[in-house]
Amino acid sequence: MKLLILNGPNLNLQGRRDTDIYGTKTFGEFMEELRKDYPLLEFEYFQSNIEGELIDRLHRCDRDRCDGVILNAGGYTHTSVALRDAVSAIRTPVVEVHISSIMAREEFRYVSLLAGVVRGSVMGFGLDSYRLGVEYFRLNNNL
Amino acid sequence: MKLLILNGPNLNLQGRRDTDIYGTKTFGEFMEELRKDYPLLEFEYFQSNIEGELIDRLHRCDRDRCDGVILNAGGYTHTSVALRDAVSAIRTPVVEVHISSIMAREEFRYVSLLAGVVRGSVMGFGLDSYRLGVEYFRLNNNL
Amino acid sequence: MKLLILNGPNLNLQGRRDTDIYGTKTFGEFMEELRKDYPLLEFEYFQSNIEGELIDRLHRCDRDRCDGVILNAGGYTHTSVALRDAVSAIRTPVVEVHISSIMAREEFRYVSLLAGVVRGSVMGFGLDSYRLGVEYFRLNNNL
Amino acid sequence: MKLLILNGPNLNLQGRRDTDIYGTKTFGEFMEELRKDYPLLEFEYFQSNIEGELIDRLHRCDRDRCDGVILNAGGYTHTSVALRDAVSAIRTPVVEVHISSIMAREEFRYVSLLAGVVRGSVMGFGLDSYRLGVEYFRLNNNL
Amino acid sequence: MKLLILNGPNLNLQGRRDTDIYGTKTFGEFMEELRKDYPLLEFEYFQSNIEGELIDRLHRCDRDRCDGVILNAGGYTHTSVALRDAVSAIRTPVVEVHISSIMAREEFRYVSLLAGVVRGSVMGFGLDSYRLGVEYFRLNNNL
Amino acid sequence: MKLLILNGPNLNLQGRRDTDIYGTKTFGEFMEELRKDYPLLEFEYFQSNIEGELIDRLHRCDRDRCDGVILNAGGYTHTSVALRDAVSAIRTPVVEVHISSIMAREEFRYVSLLAGVVRGSVMGFGLDSYRLGVEYFRLNNNL
Amino acid sequence: MKLLILNGPNLNLQGRRDTDIYGTKTFGEFMEELRKDYPLLEFEYFQSNIEGELIDRLHRCDRDRCDGVILNAGGYTHTSVALRDAVSAIRTPVVEVHISSIMAREEFRYVSLLAGVVRGSVMGFGLDSYRLGVEYFRLNNNL
Amino acid sequence: MKLLILNGPNLNLQGRRDTDIYGTKTFGEFMEELRKDYPLLEFEYFQSNIEGELIDRLHRCDRDRCDGVILNAGGYTHTSVALRDAVSAIRTPVVEVHISSIMAREEFRYVSLLAGVVRGSVMGFGLDSYRLGVEYFRLNNNL
Amino acid sequence: MKLLILNGPNLNLQGRRDTDIYGTKTFGEFMEELRKDYPLLEFEYFQSNIEGELIDRLHRCDRDRCDGVILNAGGYTHTSVALRDAVSAIRTPVVEVHISSIMAREEFRYVSLLAGVVRGSVMGFGLDSYRLGVEYFRLNNNL
Amino acid sequence: MKLLILNGPNLNLQGRRDTDIYGTKTFGEFMEELRKDYPLLEFEYFQSNIEGELIDRLHRCDRDRCDGVILNAGGYTHTSVALRDAVSAIRTPVVEVHISSIMAREEFRYVSLLAGVVRGSVMGFGLDSYRLGVEYFRLNNNL
Amino acid sequence: MKLLILNGPNLNLQGRRDTDIYGTKTFGEFMEELRKDYPLLEFEYFQSNIEGELIDRLHRCDRDRCDGVILNAGGYTHTSVALRDAVSAIRTPVVEVHISSIMAREEFRYVSLLAGVVRGSVMGFGLDSYRLGVEYFRLNNNL
Amino acid sequence: MKLLILNGPNLNLQGRRDTDIYGTKTFGEFMEELRKDYPLLEFEYFQSNIEGELIDRLHRCDRDRCDGVILNAGGYTHTSVALRDAVSAIRTPVVEVHISSIMAREEFRYVSLLAGVVRGSVMGFGLDSYRLGVEYFRLNNNL
Repeated sequence: MKLLILNGPNLNLQGRRDTDIYGTKTFGEFMEELRKDYPLLEFEYFQSNIEGELIDRLHRCDRDRCDGVILNAGGYTHTSVALRDAVSAIRTPVVEVHISSIMAREEFRYVSLLAGVVRGSVMGFGLDSYRLGVEYFRLNNNL
Repeated sequence: MKLLILNGPNLNLQGRRDTDIYGTKTFGEFMEELRKDYPLLEFEYFQSNIEGELIDRLHRCDRDRCDGVILNAGGYTHTSVALRDAVSAIRTPVVEVHISSIMAREEFRYVSLLAGVVRGSVMGFGLDSYRLGVEYFRLNNNL
Repeated sequence: MKLLILNGPNLNLQGRRDTDIYGTKTFGEFMEELRKDYPLLEFEYFQSNIEGELIDRLHRCDRDRCDGVILNAGGYTHTSVALRDAVSAIRTPVVEVHISSIMAREEFRYVSLLAGVVRGSVMGFGLDSYRLGVEYFRLNNNL
Repeated sequence: MKLLILNGPNLNLQGRRDTDIYGTKTFGEFMEELRKDYPLLEFEYFQSNIEGELIDRLHRCDRDRCDGVILNAGGYTHTSVALRDAVSAIRTPVVEVHISSIMAREEFRYVSLLAGVVRGSVMGFGLDSYRLGVEYFRLNNNL
Repeated sequence: MKLLILNGPNLNLQGRRDTDIYGTKTFGEFMEELRKDYPLLEFEYFQSNIEGELIDRLHRCDRDRCDGVILNAGGYTHTSVALRDAVSAIRTPVVEVHISSIMAREEFRYVSLLAGVVRGSVMGFGLDSYRLGVEYFRLNNNL
Repeated sequence: MKLLILNGPNLNLQGRRDTDIYGTKTFGEFMEELRKDYPLLEFEYFQSNIEGELIDRLHRCDRDRCDGVILNAGGYTHTSVALRDAVSAIRTPVVEVHISSIMAREEFRYVSLLAGVVRGSVMGFGLDSYRLGVEYFRLNNNL
Repeated sequence: MKLLILNGPNLNLQGRRDTDIYGTKTFGEFMEELRKDYPLLEFEYFQSNIEGELIDRLHRCDRDRCDGVILNAGGYTHTSVALRDAVSAIRTPVVEVHISSIMAREEFRYVSLLAGVVRGSVMGFGLDSYRLGVEYFRLNNNL
Repeated sequence: MKLLILNGPNLNLQGRRDTDIYGTKTFGEFMEELRKDYPLLEFEYFQSNIEGELIDRLHRCDRDRCDGVILNAGGYTHTSVALRDAVSAIRTPVVEVHISSIMAREEFRYVSLLAGVVRGSVMGFGLDSYRLGVEYFRLNNNL
Repeated sequence: MKLLILNGPNLNLQGRRDTDIYGTKTFGEFMEELRKDYPLLEFEYFQSNIEGELIDRLHRCDRDRCDGVILNAGGYTHTSVALRDAVSAIRTPVVEVHISSIMAREEFRYVSLLAGVVRGSVMGFGLDSYRLGVEYFRLNNNL
Repeated sequence: MKLLILNGPNLNLQGRRDTDIYGTKTFGEFMEELRKDYPLLEFEYFQSNIEGELIDRLHRCDRDRCDGVILNAGGYTHTSVALRDAVSAIRTPVVEVHISSIMAREEFRYVSLLAGVVRGSVMGFGLDSYRLGVEYFRLNNNL
Repeated sequence: MKLLILNGPNLNLQGRRDTDIYGTKTFGEFMEELRKDYPLLEFEYFQSNIEGELIDRLHRCDRDRCDGVILNAGGYTHTSVALRDAVSAIRTPVVEVHISSIMAREEFRYVSLLAGVVRGSVMGFGLDSYRLGVEYFRLNNNL
Repeated sequence: MKLLILNGPNLNLQGRRDTDIYGTKTFGEFMEELRKDYPLLEFEYFQSNIEGELIDRLHRCDRDRCDGVILNAGGYTHTSVALRDAVSAIRTPVVEVHISSIMAREEFRYVSLLAGVVRGSVMGFGLDSYRLGVEYFRLNNNL
């Protein structure tokens, strides 16, 4: 099973910013852990701060025969109708994850435009939100 | 590790109502599966249609030395300030789950009063939302 | 034909409170009249101030082979997503009634969460709202 | 007892439009049924697509010694302050009816400007909403 | 100087409805008084319950060489974009009057769509609101 | 192909009011041009300031075997639920046009109640909006 | 008959600011005209930029045996609950006037907190708004 | 004089939760103090997490010849129309109290549905809010 | 212990206006009573209709070694950010009181800008609201 | 005449996604048709999922001596103030088109930030919306 | 060049209140610094807690031949339509300053009624906001 | 001291678009002036129409040992949660500037998502807003 971890804006800074909220583990370290813990799965990783590049990457999923996307769209979660349209346009299943709970922060973060078009949403568990996303695809593929 | 699955109003009908949305598996069957799949964990199950009984049950968690609560508050998710206060008052960690995505249904279901006081939220994965809740507690207790 | 008259919070005080709005007839007296006026119908009566007990009672309707419910949910009409879910979960048809018009009182009473899931709504006719609910079931069963 | 059935805009198309919602019975057929079922009552029928003609017709009720009006104002229910003023200006009692539930359709249909000035409202029962309106006047006149 | 008194819906009932708010004087009597008190002015009077007839009547003003319009649009004040467009389309100056203060009644009466396109507005003075409208035209024509 | 140009309130003044926005061409002149430019099409023209007459005219379209309606509802665009219901009730396809862009004027003009039930909307192009409406019907009928 | 003209903040600049909206006549000149035009009436004039001084002045009216107040509260119209309370607390009748129409300017000027407690409101007529206020008191005292 | 202290959801945890906001004194200890400080008064105490049980308890007050109720409805303050109806239905006077100020916390706690039907409200004084409630009944009964 | 009773706009009319709501007792009489009932306390009294004078008076409290302020800000409660800042800027504790319940009157009185910065709020008890404010300071100073 | 067809996010998937709404024709096929149907016009085509690249492309229009832009901004229509600023900054006329009617879908698609700065808007006609855009430029250039 | 530093309510407490936000420097000390740092400029300073006195002071600017005003209206920024009118009525240019950012505090501080009528706004820089205000006038007068 | 001037979408057109609002000076000319006027400071300049490139550029600031950023985010100011997160994630201080006042234009420009995370905001002074941003950094670094 091949999974794409797709990270949106500012997540390249993970481990270096707001470490009291987000912890000190970088995504490099986290991906390493993930690959060790799930040796039977294949992971791809892509991060971009540019909305359209995230859309481009999602479009490629169908062609790539990717089995699932774990998407943390960061700040675009709340504002990007275009990203929502991209998720809804592809056939590859997408799971939405957030490190912290979007409903427990500033009001402009309450609404997720993605929630209506993804398989499900996981939020608030720190980096474990990504792991729970992986678990979902395992459960659904009987791995 | 002892976990409480706490279900709110109308979830006693699971498997019999709106089966196109919620599936045909009852909670009895689901709990059986869960116990078989996680033989090392101890599960308690409680369901009530009465808001105050859910609050009472949450209060008992600290005394019972329960390690975690997986709470699907159903319709009370959106209206019960009292339930929110109960979750925030106890020390036992609580994970919020929903069978379908609350952000993809009628507008009066968008807001979760619980999201600000739980560890994290999982929604939209069908009964697998509960399993992902269990996985969170396993990850956090290194099981 | 068996009908359940299901009354929510504070309706046990009918005939004693706000008599200028609600009249002085109690529900005991009203049920007596109703049984006399419709000798061919069988009526059950249940009142509770507790939201979850109303939900429990609705759940029992399918098992009881009840032909219809005339529901006055009182103050829960406007706030109970859980009650709405219960009405929508059962197969027994439900008619919503209100003694006074909910759209002609305070603004927090305008919205009925039930209206979208019941057969129809009758409001503003005093206790006659219940009679019109009965008439609906008669019309629909050719009695 | 003389009753006026007063229908607003587009109700002249009843039986021919959106037949899955409104059924295939026309108002001509329905009025015939009604007159047969209630041989002791006298019915008048008036329909107009023009807001002001409905107002004119309501004004005439007091002079005509009409005993009651069963009013389905259609799309004007939600927008016509003028119609509301007309209902409130006359002495003849008015009952508001709707074929489908206005609270279970698009949001711009939620508010009834009439609800505050009529005797009561009946909605969601199909053409039976009119019959329940008739029943109300029978109950109130001991017929 | 020729002035048109233009009355909207339900104002034909003036003197007979809600007499505690609007008084018992009819418009016939009032127009008689007005003509006696201002013998040098010429008054026309038109009332209609039909929105489009009021628009038609306004359009005719420019052709009729009318010097001013005193318009009480009744319930259309708050809902008719079309009437507003008519007032703004003609050259004859229009003064808006209301018998009671629209800002001291129900909230759906607060907004006047006309206020932005009339010369000025007078409200709350009972039938004297019309007289003050007449006074405005006298002041402006040095009569 | 027979097309109905249906104009709402105040459009009889076209060419004489707000000429900086709407231009100086009257509808008489414009219809003449249109007939010359599209000699193979048959045009009918109807204008009314009365909401209900516009509804009546729409109802007649199905009987008249009209191939399409180009509707500029003027001020009723934003307020008339009844007109929307009429458009949705008939089988003849309707195209909505506006001379200026409704989204670029006062806020109470933003919402078009018609947009959800017409084939499409054209706005902002001056009288050319009507021409584009004609073009749509030509394209769709391969003329 | 003794009338108080009571002016709120910035009206001391009348005649010198925004002369295209408010004209070039100062209040000194206007009061002079008024006294000449109504020789039988006695006028007092008071202006203050301080909210509380306007309240103090209103309180004094009952003691002063003033017959009426013509109040232009300027910017306080929209924000001062305290001024509203003062108008409502005294017995002397108050008429609200505005030079321009408050409903035809910025949105924060739409609401008049005074409108609900005054005799009536006159707005949009320039300084003539004050004259119409005077006319009201003359009509009411048969002068 | 007999007073009922009626506590809503989660107040059974008082002294053990959020002790920085609510302090460490339990209600058992507080009631003891109260009885010692007011030896001439008789106090009853009832707490429930169940909305309907609070309503039931309020209904009993009239029969019990209770002289007053000091009600802290906790989270139900903001959501329970049913509780409001209960307070308004009984004759026994009710005073609303809150430990912290509801207007100084999260926005969903701002509105008190009870405030319109109680004698008065006291909030923000910690447990002293209850004492001030007692003082009110003493003042009113000249004790 | 020295307490300042600080009254805002229109409260100098207490006893003379709206006596059905506020009673007929003046503040002079009430202060006399208060001083007799609490002979061990020292009371100062200040009333002003001017917002800035209330702010000035609050600023002086710290210098004056005043032990507490009982503030009824009247109409400024709902509109004065400046008064809120003053209360929050001084060290002397302030208690907010209202004669009637602000949540049971017009909607523009619902919000108290002061509530977030005072010790606590008391409202709805008539002049007894002030007494309960005094009681709070006695309880807190063990008098 | 040279026209630029400028497509925003996800429109590269046209013909492959949601084919029941958008049809199965790809943009390649459509552009071919267009060029065949309008042999005298020159078309350029540009699509990007990246907001800023669309802005860059618009900026280039003035330098390129392009005669018009037909812009379908997709999801950016509703959220991009920057795109609006770009359209308003250039001199080349822009026509806004949408395949489906934005006012007949989810609420977050109702507002077009572009509508205020384009020549006109065409929506709801499927790919024919683009053709009507072309027709506009033909009409305006007398082609 | 003569500049007026005009401070609104509570700014006389600067240096003594909320020193973690506002710092410990008083305005006396700050003005001294300012005069030393800009020896070629002439500064006047005025502070008042009374809204109307600030208005009076602004009115005097034109007569005083003041070259610019640096205005910190404190709490009146958000509520005073009257102050806005005063700024807009005078010819002397006004710069708005705030010590902290009004958009980063409570929501009722977000709106500045002044922003639309001043030259520009500076906020969030502590007392340096005033210095940047001074710099603006230097830049604009080539000093 | 090294400062980055960071400009968002459409600011590359400065000097050529809307010259009545923004003036005719281009950024090339302005940067030249700035470098001449502040010879001791080092300036970098970056402009992009692409949201993610602005985020990338901000991320680089910490590595580059830049002393401050003067950011004009243009249209992204109001919509980009991602940009806000970037500003808040870096350690380099950022000052927000706008050429015109965002609070004095269309309503969708009122909110700045950046204001809560920058040092301060300067707006409305034309290109001088940038100079005042430079002055802030000079003041803070004692240059």
